[in-house]
Amino acid sequence: MPQLTTQREAKFRARRDQIINAARDCFRRQGFHGAGMAEIAALSELSVGQIYRCFTNKDAIIEEIVRRIVNNKMLMIARDETNLNRLAGDLAYRVIHRDAQTRDDDQALMLEVAAEATRNPVVALILQDADTLLFRQASEMLKRLYPVLSDTEIAARVELIAVMTEGTDFRMLTAQKASPTQLYSLYKKILQNVFPPMDK
Amino acid sequence: MPQLTTQREAKFRARRDQIINAARDCFRRQGFHGAGMAEIAALSELSVGQIYRCFTNKDAIIEEIVRRIVNNKMLMIARDETNLNRLAGDLAYRVIHRDAQTRDDDQALMLEVAAEATRNPVVALILQDADTLLFRQASEMLKRLYPVLSDTEIAARVELIAVMTEGTDFRMLTAQKASPTQLYSLYKKILQNVFPPMDK
Repeated sequence: MPQLTTQREAKFRARRDQIINAARDCFRRQGFHGAGMAEIAALSELSVGQIYRCFTNKDAIIEEIVRRIVNNKMLMIARDETNLNRLAGDLAYRVIHRDAQTRDDDQALMLEVAAEATRNPVVALILQDADTLLFRQASEMLKRLYPVLSDTEIAARVELIAVMTEGTDFRMLTAQKASPTQLYSLYKKILQNVFPPMDK
Repeated sequence: MPQLTTQREAKFRARRDQIINAARDCFRRQGFHGAGMAEIAALSELSVGQIYRCFTNKDAIIEEIVRRIVNNKMLMIARDETNLNRLAGDLAYRVIHRDAQTRDDDQALMLEVAAEATRNPVVALILQDADTLLFRQASEMLKRLYPVLSDTEIAARVELIAVMTEGTDFRMLTAQKASPTQLYSLYKKILQNVFPPMDK
């Protein structure tokens, strides 16, 4: 029996993945409002009933999409161990992590989430929770790297990095007007100025 | 006859304002996709035909909304004459310019524009043009204030301010987790570090 349960679980998980991939595609092309459960069902080659057995409604699908995007971001934070020069370079050169298509889609979906959050309190809460999680993880990492900084100093620096990262993400919708080389040296200077030398 | 033309123009302008206000309201509550020309007509108490005499389609309405938001931003830039400490404070304390409702609406509408720009090339172009205009005006202002900086140095600093402003705008969707006082001193330090003392 445990064997069967595991098989069932694997099937359930695979089905959820299938739905999430289809939903990402639908939302990406038509926005949350343009895409209904029927379209998501059609694209994932499942019935609407099968979809509802995995997700209670569209908001639950959005929540799972955001959860996965945030998990990926947290993995990247954990892997990076904040190399400040690398961060400056990624921001200045608008570096695409992972494959460009996924990253573009993630970004477009997060914009859609943000726009929706301004009128849908359920989605606003999903966004709040995701941000709280990311902020906490980034704070813990910086605390390990810079034990000399106080908690409020750490929080201000996490906010600075969040502002710079999200601002850069947002501006990737328009053409880069500054020289990346100039920006790189500017960002390096800024980060070196607000972080103490690493205790090694 | 010129009298009559002026009257007609005034009426045309008033009608456009009426439509823009109704459209902002519709888009704000339902997004671009949720709100059709019929709803905008109903809310502005005009016929659909009257709407089409002022705007050829929904994209043209979006364009006019963005144009007005950008004009307001440009007026604010021109008025501000970049007091760096004031800018640091506005960012750290997430200061609301003008009345809070209009600012909230502007921000939500720009998010909607950004999300739409990821799938609609007409809207992507509207966003590009708006950004080019703002970037140019900000560059000219900084050039007057800091004649010692080269054009590429100016561009990098305009980009930095744009990243910080748009990143902060975006993060206003979630609760502030850092102390504004700490952030203020951090931002002041950053801006003083990248701008030379003003030539007076």
